[in-house]
Amino acid sequence: MARWESGTQERLQRAALDLFAEHGYDGVTVAQIAAHAGLTERTFFRWFADKREVLFRGQEEFEQAFLTGMTAAPDGDAMSLAMAGLAGGAAPFTAERHPWARARQRAIDAHPALRERELLKLSALATALTGALTDRGVGPVPAALAAESAVVVFRTAFTAWIAGDGARPFAEVQAEVLAELHALLAAARA
Amino acid sequence: MARWESGTQERLQRAALDLFAEHGYDGVTVAQIAAHAGLTERTFFRWFADKREVLFRGQEEFEQAFLTGMTAAPDGDAMSLAMAGLAGGAAPFTAERHPWARARQRAIDAHPALRERELLKLSALATALTGALTDRGVGPVPAALAAESAVVVFRTAFTAWIAGDGARPFAEVQAEVLAELHALLAAARA
Repeated sequence: MARWESGTQERLQRAALDLFAEHGYDGVTVAQIAAHAGLTERTFFRWFADKREVLFRGQEEFEQAFLTGMTAAPDGDAMSLAMAGLAGGAAPFTAERHPWARARQRAIDAHPALRERELLKLSALATALTGALTDRGVGPVPAALAAESAVVVFRTAFTAWIAGDGARPFAEVQAEVLAELHALLAAARA
Repeated sequence: MARWESGTQERLQRAALDLFAEHGYDGVTVAQIAAHAGLTERTFFRWFADKREVLFRGQEEFEQAFLTGMTAAPDGDAMSLAMAGLAGGAAPFTAERHPWARARQRAIDAHPALRERELLKLSALATALTGALTDRGVGPVPAALAAESAVVVFRTAFTAWIAGDGARPFAEVQAEVLAELHALLAAARA
């Protein structure tokens, strides 16, 4: 846990998740988060615009990990490019981040407005991936299908990963989910 | 157009879409919609709780079409069941509904809050389909994958269908998109 607590941002995020778990998202104030982290409200607002941002900070980095994975991949079919994006997107989800990812998702799942925000985040990811694929010369329909399917695989894998204890690498869980999608479609074709 | 205009609800919806196209969703009041339809505001509120409902009424029927399609299908693999759901979901999108579907989508695409609402609607559909699949004995991961993939196919097909002139049946466009998804995944596996 040492590294997780190393930065001020992480201390505030951890304090917030502890309090959300105990009192619910709506039952916690920024002042309480700051106090729980042993910091001032002023420090909180140096790091986060508001309480919600504690959970949703880093959308750009999140998307960028997928896009970087795709950029690094050689030209190929739409789905192979999308899979390279998935591999890149998996990178930030290390075993060390597992407790945070799980606690964050619990807070989100417990709150309809936060679930909507999460949905928008994943929709924005699909849009970004679709754009990156069309930039690589993929037609609009296969680009949308490959990007949206990649996001479906990511979401499903993420749910499975946080349900576990974090011992299995996220990339491995994701590869398994992708294989399952292949198998499902192959079975239906037969 | 005769049948489209036959009911009061349809008259109000058509009037609303005409006005949204001209003045934007935010630039139109319920009073203006009612007047444009030659009806009173009181009549409007007998049919719709608010202006937004003009665009989003019928979520239950929308989901039910998919669920009915799935219920009618014999037991089978997850993706075949989801595909039966897709076939059921396509049924309401007749050539007659094409102008309405297109005008409605234009209004939604032009407005971020309406786009979010549409996203929630499709997310609720995926949740309903996942539940129906698990009720049929499908495991949670394949159920989520098949349901979410079906929604991706529906969305992509819908976008393609409303971009056209409505001459091609929606079910045909959807079958083509599904075949494309199959091909994409098969290519990536190779």
